[in-house]
Parts: sequence; structure tokens; C-alpha cells
Amino acid sequence: MALPVKPSPWSSKSIQGVLLDISGVLYNNTEDDVGVAIDGSVEAVERLRKSGLPVRFCTNETQCTREQLVRKLSRLGFTLGVSEVFPPAPAVCQILKERNLRPFTVIHPSCDPEFADIDQNDPNCVVLGDAAKYFTFEKVNKAFQTLMSLEKPILFSMGQGKYYKEAGGLKLDVGAYMKALEYACDVKAEIVGKPSPSFFNAVLKDMGVDASNAVMIGDDIVNDVGGAQACGMKGIQVRTGKFRPSDENHPTVKPDSYVDNLAAGVDLLLQNR
Amino acid sequence: MALPVKPSPWSSKSIQGVLLDISGVLYNNTEDDVGVAIDGSVEAVERLRKSGLPVRFCTNETQCTREQLVRKLSRLGFTLGVSEVFPPAPAVCQILKERNLRPFTVIHPSCDPEFADIDQNDPNCVVLGDAAKYFTFEKVNKAFQTLMSLEKPILFSMGQGKYYKEAGGLKLDVGAYMKALEYACDVKAEIVGKPSPSFFNAVLKDMGVDASNAVMIGDDIVNDVGGAQACGMKGIQVRTGKFRPSDENHPTVKPDSYVDNLAAGVDLLLQNR
Repeated sequence: MALPVKPSPWSSKSIQGVLLDISGVLYNNTEDDVGVAIDGSVEAVERLRKSGLPVRFCTNETQCTREQLVRKLSRLGFTLGVSEVFPPAPAVCQILKERNLRPFTVIHPSCDPEFADIDQNDPNCVVLGDAAKYFTFEKVNKAFQTLMSLEKPILFSMGQGKYYKEAGGLKLDVGAYMKALEYACDVKAEIVGKPSPSFFNAVLKDMGVDASNAVMIGDDIVNDVGGAQACGMKGIQVRTGKFRPSDENHPTVKPDSYVDNLAAGVDLLLQNR
Repeated sequence: MALPVKPSPWSSKSIQGVLLDISGVLYNNTEDDVGVAIDGSVEAVERLRKSGLPVRFCTNETQCTREQLVRKLSRLGFTLGVSEVFPPAPAVCQILKERNLRPFTVIHPSCDPEFADIDQNDPNCVVLGDAAKYFTFEKVNKAFQTLMSLEKPILFSMGQGKYYKEAGGLKLDVGAYMKALEYACDVKAEIVGKPSPSFFNAVLKDMGVDASNAVMIGDDIVNDVGGAQACGMKGIQVRTGKFRPSDENHPTVKPDSYVDNLAAGVDLLLQNR
């Protein structure tokens, strides 16, 4: 008896734009911070470009500027431009300007240049990024005191990640410190970055593609896949980066597809085209 | 027309034992860490003792040992013995021994001696205290990695305070870091200290007094007053220390009485005796 053919639950033919996560999808971190491209990822990005599909790089990376990130990826063999990279810092800066806010920032010093033209005197809000070892008690307590001094405390968090994987092991991400301040100050943070719908929508607008015709490929089941799906996009999870086997039984998020890596994800998108 | 006499909602005659919070009730912190006794508090403790009511000092202090705390209070004029002081560290050490647990501790170095006879090799749980400036990223991340390496992560938090007041301003307390690790590791901390019922009950057992015949006097509406009430004790809030006027409209906790300070609280307890 022939096994039943499981029908494909969605057709890649409808896809007109592709959003790619960076860390854990294009490359893995290494101890020396140079990074190493994930097998087949450089060629996979090339194939996507040759297919004519617009591609954007959608990341919660806040430990460097866009320029630094593009240089790093170029050294690993990837071809991409600064304007194709969407991290949270430029998005939060736009919000700060629109709302006339002056932040006290708890961020990695490498991210400082993104805030170069933002007034940070007499702060009336707090911005958190992945500050890593710069999450000192002094700095976190200053952020806390700033929030407590405000009648209506405003806290921005660039992402809400719990942790990420580095060569040296797992590392606490910005989300943990966001929760610490939310609890201490009785405030709810505004997330800028994935999985915020306004963040995804800004990328879609830049591509000129409707959510229903776009797909996000990432290694984070909640922030990449779940976030994209909540916006009406398809979400594909790669089994690289921070992927864990338990993700395939996630209680709330069910990806449209799982693929072993980005190369397999691009195979899936380009089949039948 | 005479104003109606508001009946007292509870009688202090039933009280057979008194639990006192320390910081913000007996004394206030000062920049030089010497502290300053709150007006009338030294005499109030003396009057309680002369009345024959047993007294215990029930604190979430984890920045020093019991001996250091007693010496500090003695210098401020208070008379008390080490065996009358109940901080969380000895309580957590007892739990660690009973359950055969070896902690990775994130605590203030002054609290280290309380853990002197606890095996801390190859840790299989994490203990958090008010580490203040010793909440470095390296230390908090090591606690996180320890929890993530365990099949069933166990996190103890000595209290769940959000912040406290020091001469230099507000300071983040252990509860904020507890929330950070709870979020990052998908774990629920076991609180040791106020408002944990087992902590209050151990103090009541030591006094040999039933909860229904005991009263807690504190400045923390949630952890002192609410915690004591949840155990069946009366709870009195003083308007000193971290008291804020908004406490008098707290959404969930309604103290049995408010008093301006400990002296007024002792007046209330000793009237009609």
C-alpha cells in the first residue's frame, strides 16, 4: 500500500518577498567574534537574489551598528547593503524623534553611534538593548531610578529575547533585564524589534510587499516565526542557531515549515517557480 | 452633635507576640551605612520588652550576617540578641541541607559567612540575595547558565522586594533579578523570607505563639503587612521607611491599622493591657 502523500499546506508560489534573520540563520557566532557562515547560506542568499525576490535582513542585533554588521557579513562572503538591514536601533530612534523623547540608554557601546543624533540630556524615557557585560548594577539601577522619577515611565526594549548562544555558552539577552525593570517599576515595556508588528510592517513597507505574500525565515520560534505569523506572513523555522528539538512541540507557535537550514529553506521557496 | 466613635476593628488584647521589621521601622539607612534610629523606636522596643510580650525581628536583610546586624542595631541603642533576629539566609541554608542542594549564590559578600558550612561545589540550584553592586552581568549570567544546565532548575530568592530606599536614592532589590531569571529560564522562584508563609510560621513557632495571636509591624505593605495577614496574623503598617501615601489606597492589601511610627504602634498594642 502506498503511503499517503501529505499535501503541502502552503504554496511558495505566492511569495513575493523574503525576510531573513541573521544570527543563527546566515552565520554562527564564534569566540573571536569573527563568526562562521552556516553551510550553504552564502549560496542560498545568492540564489534568492538571482530569483528576483526582494530580500531584507531583519535582526534584533543591537551589539553593533548596521555598517559594522554589513562589514562582518561581507567578510563571511555575503553580499548585502546597509539599507537592506533592519535592526531595532534605527527604528527606536525614529520613535524617539516622533515622540520628542530623550532616552537614558542601557546599550552596548558599539551601538552608541546609532544614537549619535539623539538628545540624551535630562532623560524622560529608558531604552534597553543587548548590553551584555555592560548590564552593570550601576547602569541598570540608573535606568530604574530614571523610570521611577517619571510620572508616566516609558521603557523601550530592543527585542525581548531571553538568551542567545555564543561560542562561550548561553548568554542572557535584553528580555531578562526588561522583565526586571517592568517588575520593579510596575511598567510594561514597548518592544521595538521582532516580534513587534510595527517593526515587521516597516520592513514590508520598505519592500512594497503585502504580509500575505511575504515569508520570514528564522531560528527563533517565538520572535521570528510567531511574530511573522501574527502579522499575516508565513514563518519558516530553520534547525540551526538557537533551534532546539523541543521547538517542534511548541505550545503556541506552529511554523508553516521546518527546514534543516537556510539552503533548504531557499530550495523550498524556489521550487515550482 | 458628637462625632460618631469609629469602633476599633480589632483588639490588641489578644496579642501574645510581636514581629518587627527592622529597616524603615527601627532605623533608616544613611550614606555612611551607620544608620539612624527612627524617633522613639529604641524606647518603643524597650516598652514592648517590659510588657512581657515576646518580640522577634523579622527581616529580609541579606547584606550582612545576623551578628553584624545586631552589632549595628546595638550601636544605635537597641537591645536584642542574635537568636531573636530572623533573616532569610539561615532559613535558606536549612532548606538546602534538608533537600541536599548545593547552591550557586548571587549574594552580597557580607552575607557569605552565613553560607560557610554549605557545599557550593558542582551547584544544582541558585540562591539570590540583595547583591547590590555585585549583581554583575558575569555573576547573573553564571546563575542563568547554572539553571539552564539543570533538568529541573531550582531558584531560591531571599525575598522578592522591588526596591528599597538608601541615602543615595532608590535601589533595585533582589526581586528584579529574580524576575529576570524566572523569565529567561521559564522557572518560578521559591521565595525564602517575607512574605513566604513558611518563613513567618518558623518565627511564630520559635515564639510559641499562634498566628491569630500575633502581629507584624512593618513598612512594606505587601511583604510585611500582606504577608503576615495571609498567615492569619494582624498586620500594622508604619508611616516610616519605604511607606508611600499611595499605600493607603493599596488595591489588594488593607492593614489592620496604620500608625505614624513604631512608637505609635507600641502605644496601640499596649493600650488597655
